[in-house]
Amino acid sequence: METTKDKLTAAKSRLAAFAKATPALMQGFGAVSKQATAAGSFTTGQKELIAVAIAVAKGCDDCILYHLDAARKHGVDEAALIEALEIAVEMGGGPAVMYGAKALDNFRS
Amino acid sequence: METTKDKLTAAKSRLAAFAKATPALMQGFGAVSKQATAAGSFTTGQKELIAVAIAVAKGCDDCILYHLDAARKHGVDEAALIEALEIAVEMGGGPAVMYGAKALDNFRS
Amino acid sequence: METTKDKLTAAKSRLAAFAKATPALMQGFGAVSKQATAAGSFTTGQKELIAVAIAVAKGCDDCILYHLDAARKHGVDEAALIEALEIAVEMGGGPAVMYGAKALDNFRS
Amino acid sequence: METTKDKLTAAKSRLAAFAKATPALMQGFGAVSKQATAAGSFTTGQKELIAVAIAVAKGCDDCILYHLDAARKHGVDEAALIEALEIAVEMGGGPAVMYGAKALDNFRS
Amino acid sequence: METTKDKLTAAKSRLAAFAKATPALMQGFGAVSKQATAAGSFTTGQKELIAVAIAVAKGCDDCILYHLDAARKHGVDEAALIEALEIAVEMGGGPAVMYGAKALDNFRS
Amino acid sequence: METTKDKLTAAKSRLAAFAKATPALMQGFGAVSKQATAAGSFTTGQKELIAVAIAVAKGCDDCILYHLDAARKHGVDEAALIEALEIAVEMGGGPAVMYGAKALDNFRS
Repeated sequence: METTKDKLTAAKSRLAAFAKATPALMQGFGAVSKQATAAGSFTTGQKELIAVAIAVAKGCDDCILYHLDAARKHGVDEAALIEALEIAVEMGGGPAVMYGAKALDNFRS
Repeated sequence: METTKDKLTAAKSRLAAFAKATPALMQGFGAVSKQATAAGSFTTGQKELIAVAIAVAKGCDDCILYHLDAARKHGVDEAALIEALEIAVEMGGGPAVMYGAKALDNFRS
Repeated sequence: METTKDKLTAAKSRLAAFAKATPALMQGFGAVSKQATAAGSFTTGQKELIAVAIAVAKGCDDCILYHLDAARKHGVDEAALIEALEIAVEMGGGPAVMYGAKALDNFRS
Repeated sequence: METTKDKLTAAKSRLAAFAKATPALMQGFGAVSKQATAAGSFTTGQKELIAVAIAVAKGCDDCILYHLDAARKHGVDEAALIEALEIAVEMGGGPAVMYGAKALDNFRS
Repeated sequence: METTKDKLTAAKSRLAAFAKATPALMQGFGAVSKQATAAGSFTTGQKELIAVAIAVAKGCDDCILYHLDAARKHGVDEAALIEALEIAVEMGGGPAVMYGAKALDNFRS
Repeated sequence: METTKDKLTAAKSRLAAFAKATPALMQGFGAVSKQATAAGSFTTGQKELIAVAIAVAKGCDDCILYHLDAARKHGVDEAALIEALEIAVEMGGGPAVMYGAKALDNFRS
């Protein structure tokens, strides 16, 4: 079975191909992401967790993997992740419980 | 390949871990679910089918598996499921057709 | 201020104009709706409440008005509406609370 | 009552304030938009109609107003708009009927 | 025209009526909200901003008003709000720009 | 691992079973689809790409596969697909980047 790591690697490889196919668009989107994750009142790690919370509320598996990976690289711990997931559940109900449980499982794997 | 039953087992195991990680939140959510599925004008089985219909309209695979399983345990038959899926299609168009077809396939498997 | 009844009248008038502009499409959609709301395991009134629940979970104001009106015409009572809204909250969290509260308010007005 | 034109003016004024508050983000988003609407296989007018179709499928009123206005400025006619709305209905069901009817109404007003 | 404050007052009054109509459900949901907004790695104000970001990404007007009001009461400033909105735009594109611009406008009004 | 082609075959087989289970509904939906994809200002291939763009903005994997397959059969090229995906990204942000990258990958596979 495909592991979490395999899935992330596959998603990143698809993203690279997409960025090559539409460079101007993805340069613009990269500028959006850069600004959205720059440290400020929230740290970059916290901002990646907010992205995870939105991804959970929207039910986007690849987004969860991607932003969870980024959050981890910025040193967030499980307690902070759980707080973000709790807000996603408040704002997303049952589906957010399902995707939040996936996010926690991914974080721990 | 992962069967429907495997997927449901995996989802339930993730839910258990999530509930352990955030017990107060999940106790609150459990109270919401308990009230939402209590028999009234609609039976519990019918209510689980309504949850399936919403899950289909939202496109949440794990939710479909979970609430379909609960509906089955409360004795709903395929005719009632199909009625719920038809309303999901009315309210969700093409994507609901796709997820509705998955739900029917899961119910039969 | 626009009343609930004004809003419903305006929505229905827009629907009529839309149906006139794309008759073949709306004839197909009408067949979907007709089948989706035909009495079966669920009564037509219950089915309109399921449509309300999906509309609440999706946050579509005009859909709430429209299907609530249809549900009322099929004789549903407030207790049944509240049950449908409770499932919407289970599956939609905070936003469903907001739209569910609107639906109840509309039903009572 | 607020007219369609008033609503669009208000939305554009809010956008201007938002762009001033977060210039780097909106510069990135502007680059995304510019690339997304550049004439190619689809004309710019057709691309604005695709944005309208997505906005209808998502139920975003301000987006409908905004991209409908842009589509009109690029010379699209009602027949092309209706085609875009038909696909939105195929992919969005009842809610897309409601927002599509709003879009048509806005286009004609 | 209805002001932001009028809209919030109306939403809160609808919520009160809804809570009275389904007290057990809303008690459960209240427990979810309480846990989701308890101070931890994120302050309560920051958590309310995350709820705003999710509301913006989902396009729920009443949720934006409600959680923005809560965030303000917990002392968040505009800079922190804008950071939250930037992540919503990263995760929500054009519709999030529209609702984010509304959120900023509401915060300033 | 399941290939793109396997997934599409499985989705079509589920659709066939669903259509058999609810023929009147799917006949209505078929009429909606037929009208939505009839050649007009947009070609049928372009219309299938608009359906792909909406599917990407909504995050429906099976819909992406299905409408991409239809688009290909109507002779669309990669350049036109990328244009449709760019609008999806404008209207859907990060999740649309993820699903758009999947769509491109599917188209090339």
